[in-house]
Amino acid sequence: MVNLEKIISLCKRRGFITPSSEMYGGFESGYDYGFLGVLLKNNIKQSWWNEMIQYRDDIVGVDASILMSPKVWEASGHLSAGFTDPLVECKKCHHRFRRDHLENNKCPDCGGELTKEKKFNLMMKTFVGSVEDKADTIYLRGETAQGIYMNYPFMRDAMRMKIPFGIAQIGKAFRNEITPRYFIFKTREFEQMEMQYFVVPDEKKKEKIFNYWKEERMKWYLDLGIKKEDLRFKEHAKNELAHYAKKAVDVEYKFPWGWDEIEGIHDRGDWDLSNHGKHSGHDLSYYDEKTKKKFIPHIIETSAGVDRGVLVFLLNAYDEITGGRTTTTEAQKEAEVVLRLSNKIAPIKTAILPLAKNKEDITKKARQVYDLLKSHWMCQYDEAGSIGRRYRRQDEIGTPYCITIDFDSLDKNDVTVRDRDTMKQERIKIDELVDYLKDKLQ
Amino acid sequence: MVNLEKIISLCKRRGFITPSSEMYGGFESGYDYGFLGVLLKNNIKQSWWNEMIQYRDDIVGVDASILMSPKVWEASGHLSAGFTDPLVECKKCHHRFRRDHLENNKCPDCGGELTKEKKFNLMMKTFVGSVEDKADTIYLRGETAQGIYMNYPFMRDAMRMKIPFGIAQIGKAFRNEITPRYFIFKTREFEQMEMQYFVVPDEKKKEKIFNYWKEERMKWYLDLGIKKEDLRFKEHAKNELAHYAKKAVDVEYKFPWGWDEIEGIHDRGDWDLSNHGKHSGHDLSYYDEKTKKKFIPHIIETSAGVDRGVLVFLLNAYDEITGGRTTTTEAQKEAEVVLRLSNKIAPIKTAILPLAKNKEDITKKARQVYDLLKSHWMCQYDEAGSIGRRYRRQDEIGTPYCITIDFDSLDKNDVTVRDRDTMKQERIKIDELVDYLKDKLQ
Repeated sequence: MVNLEKIISLCKRRGFITPSSEMYGGFESGYDYGFLGVLLKNNIKQSWWNEMIQYRDDIVGVDASILMSPKVWEASGHLSAGFTDPLVECKKCHHRFRRDHLENNKCPDCGGELTKEKKFNLMMKTFVGSVEDKADTIYLRGETAQGIYMNYPFMRDAMRMKIPFGIAQIGKAFRNEITPRYFIFKTREFEQMEMQYFVVPDEKKKEKIFNYWKEERMKWYLDLGIKKEDLRFKEHAKNELAHYAKKAVDVEYKFPWGWDEIEGIHDRGDWDLSNHGKHSGHDLSYYDEKTKKKFIPHIIETSAGVDRGVLVFLLNAYDEITGGRTTTTEAQKEAEVVLRLSNKIAPIKTAILPLAKNKEDITKKARQVYDLLKSHWMCQYDEAGSIGRRYRRQDEIGTPYCITIDFDSLDKNDVTVRDRDTMKQERIKIDELVDYLKDKLQ
Repeated sequence: MVNLEKIISLCKRRGFITPSSEMYGGFESGYDYGFLGVLLKNNIKQSWWNEMIQYRDDIVGVDASILMSPKVWEASGHLSAGFTDPLVECKKCHHRFRRDHLENNKCPDCGGELTKEKKFNLMMKTFVGSVEDKADTIYLRGETAQGIYMNYPFMRDAMRMKIPFGIAQIGKAFRNEITPRYFIFKTREFEQMEMQYFVVPDEKKKEKIFNYWKEERMKWYLDLGIKKEDLRFKEHAKNELAHYAKKAVDVEYKFPWGWDEIEGIHDRGDWDLSNHGKHSGHDLSYYDEKTKKKFIPHIIETSAGVDRGVLVFLLNAYDEITGGRTTTTEAQKEAEVVLRLSNKIAPIKTAILPLAKNKEDITKKARQVYDLLKSHWMCQYDEAGSIGRRYRRQDEIGTPYCITIDFDSLDKNDVTVRDRDTMKQERIKIDELVDYLKDKLQ
């Protein structure tokens, strides 16, 4: 039922997401999040941050720079062959492709002959320093993980972390992808939520921790409402592993175009810390006070794409109902969209809808309810159009509770709360409204 | 009493902030936020977001891409002379300076002769597209404001905004500064919190709105505890205005090196929308249904630096007390640091400290209290060292409330809550603890 075009159309129509620089014809490196988009995205990031950091005491967060010393990327191997895509170009129409995405030796666009495969590095360059021809070439980070490794000695010492412990980060990363595609699924500018867990280099213990994180991360998607049948694990074969990985399992989602990756759980071994130790001359080992042993920790990484998360939650929540759900007249034949987002990540938690626009008593009361609720969570006040139309507008953006204020509200000091999914309505006293909704929203 | 060195030292020692890529000798483009740093920064951003967006219904938020079409920067004037710094280089030692920062014609480092002044553009370049020599030159955004303008028609239509309304954004921006300086005050990579308020082009109305935003933004700093005597407004003279500005007033803070800018309130007139309209061929006017008039809105901007905010809040909060505040023995002569951060932005809200480390009953109870509180706000559990030492550790990072669990807690089911600033201690029942603290923390 749902397909990518419907999501893209909803995103544009309702203020979730549009192409970057759309005014100038769009810019394929990335997308802009409008108001509902940034609220949804922030809620997803906050949920991840709470689960990975706030609710535990073995993981701390950091926010490292996007621009780092180029030595970081030399040491990590991102400037060499390991971080390249196989590029071919059509000699006739000059379109470019990833060789591994093509089945034939002829251009899929015009049938022309293709050039020989060339290793194309994905790191994006820039320059710092004030005279261009002498300026240093540096790179936009290709993954947030390296920023975490740079902060490993800092956090180990200043936060007195004891192994096993983790460092987590949310932030932008950049890759010069040959073919960005599938809306916000693959873009050159994207956001990651990564956690690096520093562990004792013991294969048995590592396996246990690896499996623990697999389950934890799967649980996070399930808890936020993703259907179980649309999620699966997929282990990489040895010859598919990234240059830093000893083992990799993806969390995959069943996208309209097929199963595809939304998060990776990786055993990076001592690849990163050993290389940074060698290149920087710093001792990156960890001294275990209990066992009196000193070692380079191994790393289990969980690496999720924020934008992919947004797309998955939108696809999963999208529902269409025909036959007149909120109104029984003209809209009967038109499909109504209901975005069944989890309460935790819905952009707007409550919409406040006065039943009559031109009755000052009612709009005043509605404004009071709005003022009462907005200090607790994101609210929207809407008095434009019929109530059926306003319900539809809120259903379409996933607002879990609509609150209407009518004539009876004036005497009784109460409101009607409508549930997006059950469509049940309940009258609640305004004095009890915050607690009632808090309970529902948690 | 406080100086920049003390702040830098505290930031490093306690896990707030270190230079980017420090392992490789640091990298002067920016700094990394460690755990306490990112918590502090996120709280500042959240406070701004709540005040500017969540608590009002005339402003929406967006999150636009860092990489935009280069046409954006052509239209905005950022690629021309208006967005340059006057660069000079010493012919002898080759150090580079901003001409306007120097008093003499001789190099301040070695006394050498300086080159002629050169206009140096601050935009940082990168390339997209898969073949380097044919790739498009694009730019890392030099301000977040342009991302907001790109989203103006999208938000105007999808969110049905009515003038006057605002669009706000928090995000990274990049400028190839000749001389980054003063720790996180001026860096090449930095974060902005910008709000663009779209208004009727009427000078009288605009002036009222301009003054309203001046007061609102000043109030935000005061509400979060910045001392009044350390803040002031400074209006730019006509010849100091940026290329897009018709009027500019800075909020300045009294830094250790003197008064300097932390936020700007600007009247950008119709500069941006007119230019984007011309360059893109899109109609960026606004039709006012009430007055039946169509016009290009003018823009009043509030532009704050996130990192400057972090620095100001740290400087303002830093206090040193000599003579033994928490202990009366060996530490008597040593100065104790107390970070008097507002409860709203303090990185850790409550620390849970069992009075005895080796009594299982007590640590178990303390763990229960930790588990109870951590779902509400950021907590830290600490059982290492004497209680005096642990109080000092928390004072130093600005934790407003320390909660101790002792033998009496076991029978009475209560804890002791210590206030960072008054040092008063109060016994509170565990059943009442969440409400007690919620009240204090709000």
